[in-house]
Amino acid sequence: MTNEPGSGAALARRALEDLAERGESLAAAESLTGGLLSATLTDVPGASRSFTGAVVSYATRIKESLLDVPAEVVATHGVVSGECATAMALGVRARLRTTWGLATTGVAGPDSQEGKPVGEVWVAVAGPSGVEVRRLALSGDRRAIREQSCREVLALLTEALDTEPAIPAREEPDLG
Amino acid sequence: MTNEPGSGAALARRALEDLAERGESLAAAESLTGGLLSATLTDVPGASRSFTGAVVSYATRIKESLLDVPAEVVATHGVVSGECATAMALGVRARLRTTWGLATTGVAGPDSQEGKPVGEVWVAVAGPSGVEVRRLALSGDRRAIREQSCREVLALLTEALDTEPAIPAREEPDLG
Repeated sequence: MTNEPGSGAALARRALEDLAERGESLAAAESLTGGLLSATLTDVPGASRSFTGAVVSYATRIKESLLDVPAEVVATHGVVSGECATAMALGVRARLRTTWGLATTGVAGPDSQEGKPVGEVWVAVAGPSGVEVRRLALSGDRRAIREQSCREVLALLTEALDTEPAIPAREEPDLG
Repeated sequence: MTNEPGSGAALARRALEDLAERGESLAAAESLTGGLLSATLTDVPGASRSFTGAVVSYATRIKESLLDVPAEVVATHGVVSGECATAMALGVRARLRTTWGLATTGVAGPDSQEGKPVGEVWVAVAGPSGVEVRRLALSGDRRAIREQSCREVLALLTEALDTEPAIPAREEPDLG
């Protein structure tokens, strides 16, 4: 983890600064990144102002029990799919009651999975206006694929934050 | 993360090999390590044979809602306490239905928390025979404290695995 522009650390720092300014919160659902996305975020001092927590759903049954991914999504599309990434992002956002939910799922290797090749990764960002999901075809070893997946989902969050207007702070009704 | 003996990576690799041989499973509940413990474990190829998943409970309310830490434990002892680490390890083991549950909670800095100094960390390991909990007084910066917390909880797991007999594989009843 370096601090160069475009690195996971730099993207995490920028996203957390934006979220803190906006008064918004963040949670993550991690499959192939296995905690690395959360670790990248919590490496930033003050991350707790916006980062609430995460579910690392390495086993498929955890995706269903802790993230409410429908069993039919797994049965029909598999866990390496845009449908599963979408359900994970929505699930963690709902369970942890945050403004934003991130998700990563895919094949880090060394073995393929569900007939999908090493490097096929799906990332998703759920926010107030819906879900953005992106398919990645990554190359490199296990570590490189995991690190690049973190960068890509943080880049997707940054794009969403640039597009989505900040939720206005709630005002008390004027009872005067 | 290096592969030197005693490093987090080496401890993770050894624990995962032991667990796979024993046919046992593992889950983690992370507070101050914020995903780094899970990332260290899932950096090992084949981690999914034993590592099931984790809850990163960065916000206090997630400790209660996803790990079943009793509100009275938080109110009475605070989240930086042996009682909270114990409840987190038991909670993640029960929720994720694994043989072993690990937990980390403490103050990574830069600021103190609940009047506890930076570097006060509690780690716990819940297994078939109960819970082991250990208080650490760590020094160094935020990253060093987080990395050392991961090493210490993995060392505690290794000790527990050396002490606890493997759960015998279930045998089918002889109906002959």
